Amino acid sequence: MNEKEIIDPWSSNLPENYRDIINNFGLEKFNVHDFPEPNLLMRRGIIFAGRGLGIISKSIKQKKKFYILTGIMPTADKVHFGTKSVIDMAVYFQKHGAETYVLVADLEAAATRGVDLQTAKKRALEIHIPCYVALGLDLKKTKFYFQSSNQDVTNLAFEISNKATLNEYKAIYGNAEPSRIMSSLLQVADILHPQLKEQMPGIIPIGIDQDPHMRLARDIASRASKFKFILPSSINHKFVPSLTGDLKMSKSEGNSLFLLDSDKEIKDKISKALTGGQKTLKEQKELGGNPDKDMIFELFRQHLIENDSELKKREEDYRNGKILDSENKEYATKLLIEFMNDFRKKFEKAQKEVKKSFD
Amino acid sequence: MNEKEIIDPWSSNLPENYRDIINNFGLEKFNVHDFPEPNLLMRRGIIFAGRGLGIISKSIKQKKKFYILTGIMPTADKVHFGTKSVIDMAVYFQKHGAETYVLVADLEAAATRGVDLQTAKKRALEIHIPCYVALGLDLKKTKFYFQSSNQDVTNLAFEISNKATLNEYKAIYGNAEPSRIMSSLLQVADILHPQLKEQMPGIIPIGIDQDPHMRLARDIASRASKFKFILPSSINHKFVPSLTGDLKMSKSEGNSLFLLDSDKEIKDKISKALTGGQKTLKEQKELGGNPDKDMIFELFRQHLIENDSELKKREEDYRNGKILDSENKEYATKLLIEFMNDFRKKFEKAQKEVKKSFD
Repeated sequence: MNEKEIIDPWSSNLPENYRDIINNFGLEKFNVHDFPEPNLLMRRGIIFAGRGLGIISKSIKQKKKFYILTGIMPTADKVHFGTKSVIDMAVYFQKHGAETYVLVADLEAAATRGVDLQTAKKRALEIHIPCYVALGLDLKKTKFYFQSSNQDVTNLAFEISNKATLNEYKAIYGNAEPSRIMSSLLQVADILHPQLKEQMPGIIPIGIDQDPHMRLARDIASRASKFKFILPSSINHKFVPSLTGDLKMSKSEGNSLFLLDSDKEIKDKISKALTGGQKTLKEQKELGGNPDKDMIFELFRQHLIENDSELKKREEDYRNGKILDSENKEYATKLLIEFMNDFRKKFEKAQKEVKKSFD
Repeated sequence: MNEKEIIDPWSSNLPENYRDIINNFGLEKFNVHDFPEPNLLMRRGIIFAGRGLGIISKSIKQKKKFYILTGIMPTADKVHFGTKSVIDMAVYFQKHGAETYVLVADLEAAATRGVDLQTAKKRALEIHIPCYVALGLDLKKTKFYFQSSNQDVTNLAFEISNKATLNEYKAIYGNAEPSRIMSSLLQVADILHPQLKEQMPGIIPIGIDQDPHMRLARDIASRASKFKFILPSSINHKFVPSLTGDLKMSKSEGNSLFLLDSDKEIKDKISKALTGGQKTLKEQKELGGNPDKDMIFELFRQHLIENDSELKKREEDYRNGKILDSENKEYATKLLIEFMNDFRKKFEKAQKEVKKSFD
């Protein structure tokens, strides 16, 4: 990769409000040059901020122990492309030496959504964990666990519960119902528990909307002095917008792309996607389109086009009216179907391996 | 035991405010005739109320399955005589067929008092559990467990957390801090978890001050419909007053009697105990004393004099001025030292058995 091809996270790709978020929340700007072999999310400003990034960068460069932790919320039986971005980051850190933890948030799902533990377990083993493995997580090197079977985590949640106050919960969540408080403390315990055996830095890849959890986790970690936790780090990605331009892909909406979508579903969804094109073909050719407000380009940038030069050229061509929406959509459909065919094979293989591994 | 010798719980022994409590809280009056072979606490109005008592009475009489559950709060390394009353009730129900559960509230102690799990474990194994066994619980028939090692309980706490609201917590506890909420939900899970394998009635012996916990447990049990819990029952004892007449024995105060107190401690404490006697010896002989306001008689009633006729005669003699405070104290000291010598032997034996059983 040519260093010059790195797209600055502070380019026009980053909406003004993301800059505000960084300033208002006291986040650190993500600097792509601090991390070796950045993946496309890192190169293209999708990853744009974090907390405690320095200690992670240092751990990677100096080959010191650190961990990555992410979770599975087994409320749905599908995995959307927003989750793929998180796993892409987990894969990045795993490949750069991180101990890897993936929790199934079955107790949280039970507490906040009434999903029973058996349903959660079935979904995780049959869908989510195989998806994560098919996306590139190494099954043997990843510690998948269920909250309901990890006594270290549940015990830690109780032990740290006196390090947060009701007023903090109200300030952070508005809603401070018992189930919310329990879930949140469990989440903090998940984040910190890899350090029970050995103090080490850890990184949690999260959407920027999850930052309040992270601040709470860091506050609690600093107050729970007897555990001597290193404050956990976070790395934030921008929302993966829905195909129709909503801020965030959701598990429940029809306008989101899911891993394992069929060719037909892909074609249908892409055909309806919001583009940055003009109203008429004539205008598009004359005025060009805007790739920054185009959901097809979001897919190219975040998932489908690995090569930075290719992406850059396509963006230019789109701006100049050389590429039309129909061509973009056709190309995206082709790439997505290719991706999905490959993914489906990996998923089926992973399903068998996961079944074997958890039996 | 002669039926006529049963002391009515609604006799003058029960202060007016206990009647108010029953009325205000909507408790059931305890009826000693509903329970076979009542122990002295039941016969003498120390046990005075409860919730769901009918189903427990029926279970005993029809020899149907039910359970008794009580706990150990490992915040202190001593067990006082207030706890003895609770265990006497547990022993009663165990002898009348109850499955017996005794939890060590180590996670609650960690959450609300900052006691670490190792300290809690050591205290429970070396002091509390052997005390409970020495008081008559059958080690082999009793399921002692640590909250921190009982995943069924911690999981259930999370699963039921959406069945209570923040406002309920505020109403019940005033303080609705996260650690309090976590502890309370864990307590409810402790109370209900024996029914996870099989639906059955259960009884929790508690001081009347603990009734709000019980109401919450029953409310949550009725709302968590998917578990099909039978509402847990409770049986309430009056406070065991301190030797100086404070409402309740406490773990931290010097005016409470502890199991394993030395002969010297017993003598000192009894000598300072509040009595119902008159100011002068002359007045006492003329006017008599009041056994209802006498802490020595509290000990006789709750712990030291098993025979109802003997107790009744001694109360009459005290009222009539035939027995003086000094004689009462001497007799109580003698009985307590006898009890304690016997208890100490049982305790030491139990310590060895517990060590063996938990190794």
